[in-house]
Amino acid sequence: MNEELDHDTVAHGMQPEDTPELRALYKGFQEQSLIPLWTQLGDLMPMHPKSKAVPHVWEWAKLLPLAEASGDLVPVGRGGERRAIGLANPGLAPNAYISPTLWAAIQYLGPRETAPEHRHAQNAFRFVVEGEGVWTVVNGAPVRMSRGDLLLTPGWAYHGHHNNRDAPMAWLDGLDIPFSQQMDVGFFEFGSDKVTDYATPDFSRGERLWAHPGLRPLSGLQNTVSSPLAAFRWAHTDQALSEQLMLEDEGYPATFEPGHAAIRFTNPTTGGDVMPTIRCQFHRLRAGTESVMRQEVGSNVFQVFDGKGAVNLAGETYPLNKGDMFVAPSWVPFQLQAETEFDLFRFSDAPIMERLNFMRTATSE
Amino acid sequence: MNEELDHDTVAHGMQPEDTPELRALYKGFQEQSLIPLWTQLGDLMPMHPKSKAVPHVWEWAKLLPLAEASGDLVPVGRGGERRAIGLANPGLAPNAYISPTLWAAIQYLGPRETAPEHRHAQNAFRFVVEGEGVWTVVNGAPVRMSRGDLLLTPGWAYHGHHNNRDAPMAWLDGLDIPFSQQMDVGFFEFGSDKVTDYATPDFSRGERLWAHPGLRPLSGLQNTVSSPLAAFRWAHTDQALSEQLMLEDEGYPATFEPGHAAIRFTNPTTGGDVMPTIRCQFHRLRAGTESVMRQEVGSNVFQVFDGKGAVNLAGETYPLNKGDMFVAPSWVPFQLQAETEFDLFRFSDAPIMERLNFMRTATSE
Amino acid sequence: MNEELDHDTVAHGMQPEDTPELRALYKGFQEQSLIPLWTQLGDLMPMHPKSKAVPHVWEWAKLLPLAEASGDLVPVGRGGERRAIGLANPGLAPNAYISPTLWAAIQYLGPRETAPEHRHAQNAFRFVVEGEGVWTVVNGAPVRMSRGDLLLTPGWAYHGHHNNRDAPMAWLDGLDIPFSQQMDVGFFEFGSDKVTDYATPDFSRGERLWAHPGLRPLSGLQNTVSSPLAAFRWAHTDQALSEQLMLEDEGYPATFEPGHAAIRFTNPTTGGDVMPTIRCQFHRLRAGTESVMRQEVGSNVFQVFDGKGAVNLAGETYPLNKGDMFVAPSWVPFQLQAETEFDLFRFSDAPIMERLNFMRTATSE
Amino acid sequence: MNEELDHDTVAHGMQPEDTPELRALYKGFQEQSLIPLWTQLGDLMPMHPKSKAVPHVWEWAKLLPLAEASGDLVPVGRGGERRAIGLANPGLAPNAYISPTLWAAIQYLGPRETAPEHRHAQNAFRFVVEGEGVWTVVNGAPVRMSRGDLLLTPGWAYHGHHNNRDAPMAWLDGLDIPFSQQMDVGFFEFGSDKVTDYATPDFSRGERLWAHPGLRPLSGLQNTVSSPLAAFRWAHTDQALSEQLMLEDEGYPATFEPGHAAIRFTNPTTGGDVMPTIRCQFHRLRAGTESVMRQEVGSNVFQVFDGKGAVNLAGETYPLNKGDMFVAPSWVPFQLQAETEFDLFRFSDAPIMERLNFMRTATSE
Repeated sequence: MNEELDHDTVAHGMQPEDTPELRALYKGFQEQSLIPLWTQLGDLMPMHPKSKAVPHVWEWAKLLPLAEASGDLVPVGRGGERRAIGLANPGLAPNAYISPTLWAAIQYLGPRETAPEHRHAQNAFRFVVEGEGVWTVVNGAPVRMSRGDLLLTPGWAYHGHHNNRDAPMAWLDGLDIPFSQQMDVGFFEFGSDKVTDYATPDFSRGERLWAHPGLRPLSGLQNTVSSPLAAFRWAHTDQALSEQLMLEDEGYPATFEPGHAAIRFTNPTTGGDVMPTIRCQFHRLRAGTESVMRQEVGSNVFQVFDGKGAVNLAGETYPLNKGDMFVAPSWVPFQLQAETEFDLFRFSDAPIMERLNFMRTATSE
Repeated sequence: MNEELDHDTVAHGMQPEDTPELRALYKGFQEQSLIPLWTQLGDLMPMHPKSKAVPHVWEWAKLLPLAEASGDLVPVGRGGERRAIGLANPGLAPNAYISPTLWAAIQYLGPRETAPEHRHAQNAFRFVVEGEGVWTVVNGAPVRMSRGDLLLTPGWAYHGHHNNRDAPMAWLDGLDIPFSQQMDVGFFEFGSDKVTDYATPDFSRGERLWAHPGLRPLSGLQNTVSSPLAAFRWAHTDQALSEQLMLEDEGYPATFEPGHAAIRFTNPTTGGDVMPTIRCQFHRLRAGTESVMRQEVGSNVFQVFDGKGAVNLAGETYPLNKGDMFVAPSWVPFQLQAETEFDLFRFSDAPIMERLNFMRTATSE
Repeated sequence: MNEELDHDTVAHGMQPEDTPELRALYKGFQEQSLIPLWTQLGDLMPMHPKSKAVPHVWEWAKLLPLAEASGDLVPVGRGGERRAIGLANPGLAPNAYISPTLWAAIQYLGPRETAPEHRHAQNAFRFVVEGEGVWTVVNGAPVRMSRGDLLLTPGWAYHGHHNNRDAPMAWLDGLDIPFSQQMDVGFFEFGSDKVTDYATPDFSRGERLWAHPGLRPLSGLQNTVSSPLAAFRWAHTDQALSEQLMLEDEGYPATFEPGHAAIRFTNPTTGGDVMPTIRCQFHRLRAGTESVMRQEVGSNVFQVFDGKGAVNLAGETYPLNKGDMFVAPSWVPFQLQAETEFDLFRFSDAPIMERLNFMRTATSE
Repeated sequence: MNEELDHDTVAHGMQPEDTPELRALYKGFQEQSLIPLWTQLGDLMPMHPKSKAVPHVWEWAKLLPLAEASGDLVPVGRGGERRAIGLANPGLAPNAYISPTLWAAIQYLGPRETAPEHRHAQNAFRFVVEGEGVWTVVNGAPVRMSRGDLLLTPGWAYHGHHNNRDAPMAWLDGLDIPFSQQMDVGFFEFGSDKVTDYATPDFSRGERLWAHPGLRPLSGLQNTVSSPLAAFRWAHTDQALSEQLMLEDEGYPATFEPGHAAIRFTNPTTGGDVMPTIRCQFHRLRAGTESVMRQEVGSNVFQVFDGKGAVNLAGETYPLNKGDMFVAPSWVPFQLQAETEFDLFRFSDAPIMERLNFMRTATSE
């Protein structure tokens, strides 16, 4: 059966004949805030996900200069709250959504600047593709931000940032703003105009309590919705990926697929995702590796952390260099191709899809 | 602190001065598919949910004649699939969404008509405010639809309907179409052009296996995402509500609040909601009872099943009669007022909000 | 490999030579409260479960007269607490355990007698093979006990019984006393010397709130460890089993195995077992049906509710009539054989085995 | 109310008068394998747990020489399987049980010896109070055993040990043998007469995949009953405890109680206990600290890893030195007292008690 034809049939087939009675009926519908299904079905209930969002790649080499220019021209502080530049999916204009659920932005903090504290129901993380010198202060606890680190700010946690250096710093912010905005779940509160603690410890209190593999403090036996370990350091991520590839070399099952190591960042109290709406992962492909072409319900965003390669998005290949980002909207096939060893950070809305039983995946050659 | 002021401040405060450099920067943003946070924050991250959806009441006395007229003018069958008239929230035009997550429609099936079989990822239910004579056929099993019954069609179950009588019948369809459409999770497949079984049993096979209180068939020990009991009969609902009020009369805790009995329809394999995105409940208030004024994250839709009363929605009172429906969008305060004994069916997206940890509630006097 | 030989080898193989030094060592062990593994391994770690408990059948025709005689000779009341006669597995003497985990007893209450209230950590149920006229009062709520009913008294619930008639009544008590006694988990408290409410309602308050299929009161949204529905009536059980057999006749999957209908009694807040240590089920076999021969980790106790048949226990066949009871200890093969339509109540410690990951099952022809 | 008196009353109160009829009744009971409740209630259902197991301390200084003597006199290998010396609770003679649920033994492996592979349903761990040079091979993967390490052998995993050095080594084995033996859940199979891999890597394959804090391999997304991380290294445990005490010094909540740091070893796929029946923890008390006096349902076993102190068990104080072990049976009050900084490994059957809803705790001054 021809799917496109069916699709059209659903949308436009079998419309009733245009008569004065029908017009009167449609006028009655309008007066009573009613819209009949038969005038809109195809769009409402597609044969498979057909997102308004489009596959798109953002080049770091073009983003970064714009972020730097913002540093000169746009103040940061109470009111504007953050100097963040959203990656706006061209299919979702005029919204600054990278996908129907996810927000991705480059945040830029100038030398010695402070982004004031606030909190919101939306879940947030930061991933640092390069740089150092900023501390994010989450519920009063300073957390160092350095290259390769993933830092969490789960919903309703107070957070602010300050730059302790004479150099600016830029990083990736990821949030569930589009989901929250469309689904009407957002709450927001202002906190301190400064950060509440300007200390610059190497390791946050959460790490000191929780970053010991398999060990749980007896003071933390209650499970939490989001991970109490809120800083995932590059050294650990790097080692975990390296070990998977070494085990593969030694002949043991360890990688996600041949030549492709991958880890998921998790909440140690449950083993599940770090936050209720956002999944975070890190992928490393050996030079020359191509991942299987994959379709998933929900949207996936990647940032190249290191190396060179490409992504095939719905049949079109885009070259990728360090810092480049791309989005694969729901059900759009994507495939990673590694020219050199290729490291990518990834986040997605998979927890939403899984918790609500909408997840499906498919692979093809 | 004045919330509205803050809100505005977030949106519009501290905009950078308009200079040629700023214009160049903004042009750069546009070229690179970027949108800065500081031009849009207030709308993005409100102090509390402020839905575009508005509180609204639909009167059954006006809906029903339009549905009847549709029966004369609009065919049902493959392509159009259903003669369903969506309740379109005036704030969400041009979409036929009753809320950002939920779809509600009056479906109308003429004498001896058949609505052909199909299936979709979207979860659906039907609630019958009056009438009888239609059977819905779910995954091949005929299910009688009668006054007061709740019938489920969970995601990806094949379903069609046929009217076995010489009189038409109308009922309420509830689905998660708006969520599915916006979040890009929908799949759809056509089934038989007829229903696969025209038998008209009083009780469906699912009920015969599952509608025995607390008893689980050994052939059904695997938990299921949606309820295997897919027909909830009015006789049971009515009795459950009556018993709560009698127990209250006898001095025992049984009701939801004084004078207000309520039950939730559940999946007997888990005790949880009947479907992963939709909660269904039934409420009965004694004559003269006013429920507590309540705010909830997520949207709630009610249909009056019997009796007379009113609803206070965000401070405005609307009278309600049998069949009338209303929606309370996210965080809009609502309060039920019973003039006579007052029976209402209710559905909501609460499972979405709870599973993703966005649920909040508040009550006020 | 010969298992019995291995088994012996484990127990007795490779014992060190008896020397003065070895005797000195063994004396040292004894002084220090030590026992070496090598003197006892076979018994400690068998190749498969080899219970000290033996398969055994108790005949109702012999039990009942002894219970009646107890009614004349033994008082009931504070101190003795209950006129209960334990079914003592011959392999577990001198304990009155029917299995290493389970207790089964015939309780007998004379005309107008009261068994006083108490509570204990042990979980208990009653099943009524015949008779009526007694109410059990659980946490203050009277619960009618009639033929075919299952009544729960979960751990730490106060309970007493009173006979409202001029005829005596006997029933089956099931508890986890052997588990509790050996594992040291028991607590006990006395309550009223009488029952706290001598009312004799047809339906208990728990049933009035909970015995509506798939409907959950909003006043009971918190999940509970044990079922809040604590009376499962014969009419429901009978109908559930009948419907399974009728569906089988109509060609639909519904029974546990051909000709063998079965239900599990469940906690409606979770869909799981009624109590954390005890599983309760009811089985109905068509005349002429033989169940598959089955082995399970953990112990199973059956009571014939109606009909005639037999059980094959470890290769030996025992005829069974109404009221007869038997135990299949861990891993002992058992098979039911129905001469007439054959109804059996069953309870087991399967929740213990499953929750601790020790469950295994096997079937054979 | 005097509890002991009640207790006696339950056991012995209200016995019926000794008559010929009663004797006939008791004879009938005996013939029918019945035992009446009223002759045994006190013992069956105590007011609170009163274990046959007694509090007891084993001194390392006395254990170790006996283990060494065994090394000279008793062979290890197929049949005897292990040179393990069980700590036998004096109250549970003639069984080598340290408690009704738990087994604890000192295992001793001479220079270059191999303990052959086998597997069993029983869950096991090893904890190393001193020494090094042995590798345990679990499901084919060699795992180094060194001072302070906890190594798991979950139920049904093949395992053997080999000593790669010229010096003997002794360690603590903990298992759920008493539970398994009494509850009839044990299965056993022989494996290789040697270990399947004599390699001596510093880190096992499980650690290389799983010992990265909060990071989960995508090849390991399926949750497992027991921890896939099966080696918990002393360096991590030591650091986790040190950080808790430092955080306490800095004024932040981190310790279990003042001066008392503690961690639980967990399954990273769930955050729960490492195995379904056994909980493992490590405790560090500052010099001079006394823990709160505590009662728990279930049995707890401690081994001093470092430092000097004492334990108060049911009111009696026992001095403790490195390697000493003690057991606190169910509901026996215990309190730790640290003379120096005091490190203790602990294991218990708490998962059994919690999963079956029997856990209770109490504290006193």
